[in-house]
Amino acid sequence: MTDLIHATDPKTGKPIDPGIALSDEADIDRLCAEATAAFRIYRNTSLETRAAFLEAVAAEIMESGEALIERVMVETGLPRTRVEGERARTCGQLRLFARVVRDGDFLDARIDPARPDRQPLPRVDLRLRNIGTGPVAVFGASNFPLAFSVAGGDTASALAAGCPVIVKAHPAHPGTSEIVATAIRAAITRCDLPAGVFGMVVETGIELGAALVTDPRIKAVAFTGSRQGGLALMQAAAGRPEPIPVYAEMSSINPVLLFPAALASRGSAIGQAFATSLQIGAGQFCTNPGLVLGTDGPGLDAFIAGATASIEGAMPQTMLTPGIHAAYDRGVSRLASHAGVRTLARGDAPSGPHDAQAALFETDLAGFLEDGHLQDEVFGPSSLLVRVPDAGAFSDVLAHLEGQLTIALHMDEPDHPVVTTLLPVLEEKAGRILVNGFGTGVEVADAMVHGGPFPATSDSRTTSVGTLAIRRFLRPVCYQDLPQALLARALRDGNPLGINRMIDGKIAKH
Amino acid sequence: MTDLIHATDPKTGKPIDPGIALSDEADIDRLCAEATAAFRIYRNTSLETRAAFLEAVAAEIMESGEALIERVMVETGLPRTRVEGERARTCGQLRLFARVVRDGDFLDARIDPARPDRQPLPRVDLRLRNIGTGPVAVFGASNFPLAFSVAGGDTASALAAGCPVIVKAHPAHPGTSEIVATAIRAAITRCDLPAGVFGMVVETGIELGAALVTDPRIKAVAFTGSRQGGLALMQAAAGRPEPIPVYAEMSSINPVLLFPAALASRGSAIGQAFATSLQIGAGQFCTNPGLVLGTDGPGLDAFIAGATASIEGAMPQTMLTPGIHAAYDRGVSRLASHAGVRTLARGDAPSGPHDAQAALFETDLAGFLEDGHLQDEVFGPSSLLVRVPDAGAFSDVLAHLEGQLTIALHMDEPDHPVVTTLLPVLEEKAGRILVNGFGTGVEVADAMVHGGPFPATSDSRTTSVGTLAIRRFLRPVCYQDLPQALLARALRDGNPLGINRMIDGKIAKH
Repeated sequence: MTDLIHATDPKTGKPIDPGIALSDEADIDRLCAEATAAFRIYRNTSLETRAAFLEAVAAEIMESGEALIERVMVETGLPRTRVEGERARTCGQLRLFARVVRDGDFLDARIDPARPDRQPLPRVDLRLRNIGTGPVAVFGASNFPLAFSVAGGDTASALAAGCPVIVKAHPAHPGTSEIVATAIRAAITRCDLPAGVFGMVVETGIELGAALVTDPRIKAVAFTGSRQGGLALMQAAAGRPEPIPVYAEMSSINPVLLFPAALASRGSAIGQAFATSLQIGAGQFCTNPGLVLGTDGPGLDAFIAGATASIEGAMPQTMLTPGIHAAYDRGVSRLASHAGVRTLARGDAPSGPHDAQAALFETDLAGFLEDGHLQDEVFGPSSLLVRVPDAGAFSDVLAHLEGQLTIALHMDEPDHPVVTTLLPVLEEKAGRILVNGFGTGVEVADAMVHGGPFPATSDSRTTSVGTLAIRRFLRPVCYQDLPQALLARALRDGNPLGINRMIDGKIAKH
Repeated sequence: MTDLIHATDPKTGKPIDPGIALSDEADIDRLCAEATAAFRIYRNTSLETRAAFLEAVAAEIMESGEALIERVMVETGLPRTRVEGERARTCGQLRLFARVVRDGDFLDARIDPARPDRQPLPRVDLRLRNIGTGPVAVFGASNFPLAFSVAGGDTASALAAGCPVIVKAHPAHPGTSEIVATAIRAAITRCDLPAGVFGMVVETGIELGAALVTDPRIKAVAFTGSRQGGLALMQAAAGRPEPIPVYAEMSSINPVLLFPAALASRGSAIGQAFATSLQIGAGQFCTNPGLVLGTDGPGLDAFIAGATASIEGAMPQTMLTPGIHAAYDRGVSRLASHAGVRTLARGDAPSGPHDAQAALFETDLAGFLEDGHLQDEVFGPSSLLVRVPDAGAFSDVLAHLEGQLTIALHMDEPDHPVVTTLLPVLEEKAGRILVNGFGTGVEVADAMVHGGPFPATSDSRTTSVGTLAIRRFLRPVCYQDLPQALLARALRDGNPLGINRMIDGKIAKH
């Protein structure tokens, strides 16, 4: 008899039926063998076949209908509008990668034609294209049960690159994972692809995930989650006889910088908008604004008043899992009892067992610089405000900070000169710099970077959201003097695929 | 008094004057501090400034004149034509990266314009460009004292990316390194750049190199050398509090596949060409053909006869260092005394103390598959021929092989069908697949890949030769709703730099 995992309904603390079958060691071996066999077939499918498959996955997810929506809601405590929105985002992401595959830019096709008459030596014919790196292990995240989980951005970009995917399902939403996995399998059948293009592992612990990362047939790992979890995967991958890349999106407190002119003209409004961003989704976003740096003055007091009013009137929200809730409470207690930290606001008292009570704290510049742990991420609707004497002090704080996913600037035109001097520092600290907004709400687009210097991610050269995410799973191959008939169509004379190619250093569609 | 290092003249075994000053721990700290300070200034120079600097480095190297050529010759034992050719290659590479910088494609500029009317939510304005990752440590290689050393491909691509470079000079050619470093410093002065754009560390051991890789101010490492050395750097980098990428080009035996039709029609000529490739530069190339797989028959006998005649008549050549020569002799002795291996040919007896005696060995398919050590790299003019029953057996051998830089195919039109079935396997094993040639002679071009699956390199997603090498030292930054005046010129409306940009998913110069 197969053992089952039952997720916990975070609103009630009760187990959810039906249970989902747990995997075992033999499944890892079988899935890796199937993925390896599927890799060569799948990566050599036409661009149109691969694009149509990604669209079929989106269609099958939509066809899962109410059953999926309801299972997500009960497993995560998230409200219907959020779940439906996240489903739309997930399907939109799959369709965007279908466009990326059809465009063919990701192939990075390059041709340096032969020059038989070159002196002192003739030049050979060189042609380059990207191919997939091999089977990818994807670790689903708890906080985006659809968009960063079984068919989320990591899976979509790996499949787009031509790599089979084996997902380690997040134990907080095994039922959701199973429904989405079924949708992917249906799309595989519909598109007549090998079953090994997709596999899923379900466990309550971490043993099978570790076995997956150390299996020699896995060639890359994508992960969204805690710093501890990401570091463990990085170590496991680096310790393999053949080390492989790990793309871990881990830890960020997403500083918000409040500049004097903006504070003076609209401090209270910024404070209210901040409180909304802080509390959306119970603060369970990688881009949640966990640190605010504000220049001292009446504008900052107005910001605090605006934020405080919004936080104090806010209804508590259920967190994703009992574990996340417990960690949040620990983090908040640590700040509340810190000698150098003052509590500015708390949300309403919780009603459910795993409700998060929002929190805003304050410290001063010296206190913040003194204790490195004040920049530890508290996952949930908690933020720490650091009062600085003037905008000149921002660079001291930034120099002290670890790498970040985002840094948000609230500024008006008179603030431009000081922002201009800070921009070089900001670029070296974060993957995305945004103006008069908050990092929550990550657009899935060509120009998005959801990445950043360590420990925001394990690899600042990459992004896990947006079309550039595909590059993580590609490697270039060069063909020298290969006869036309043997070349991939992307590299043949006459450009039969009609894609962009770099020929003799110039990009063009010829 | 500063301690000096004296390289050994490999032709005589005698120390070379003048000695070169050794670095110490304090130099590491100073160089890292200077590189960090220079980074922000240097990465924000205009494309034209950076391109002109790369060209100035090439010009200064040429101005080093005879003094450089002669010092390379005495430190490496390489002949004048090779040294002058390598200098041309090195300067050509710097000028090619100047073109890459001016073109601006490496910035990967992307713009997703705001869509205020989008439903259900407006889209923000998103713009992306690449910036340098930070100071890079480059480990010079012994076998290309110019092209893979102080101002070689790693340095050129890192400088092009906007990253300061600290070179760990190879102790086999410290005088050469000092002359080239002086040329780079002169170019820095001429272009009015900060001194910290370039630094160099000289040592006889490995302590300072290790200190460099573990210094928190270093953000990436590039290395060309032994597998042992590369693995040690990978471990050191992965063990840092902030792990950083290591681009190590390590170990490859570059299989040569001889197909039946080609062997039948021109076995002897291929054998002669192979022997030439094997012995060029005393076989001291990463792309040296260390393994030959040939289908049994009279054509293979003709190949062996052609190769043997060429090897047996060959003059011995001086190897780069006493250490390389000793390692080569050990590797050859191991093969010569191996029970399953037969010696086919040896070159003339050595005359100088560090001359390499070329060698060709043979084993059969079963013997090769049985002993994994038969695919260990023997650095120098030694190769192992594996006689296989037919071309169908190639896939068994390939499946058994580690990752490679190159695989060369000698084939005629009747061989096309079997090559077609093998191509998918070849792509998964090597970074470059070449037809009717040998891997030696690596063209510096846009479509070149000098990389490949582990252990050929530490990171198969990259190349260390060709313009794509720049991508190793870049990371993307996204700007959301940043006012025009604050944007980098690469991202402003109207495309003031006139570069390719992806706007709403389409690449164009607007």
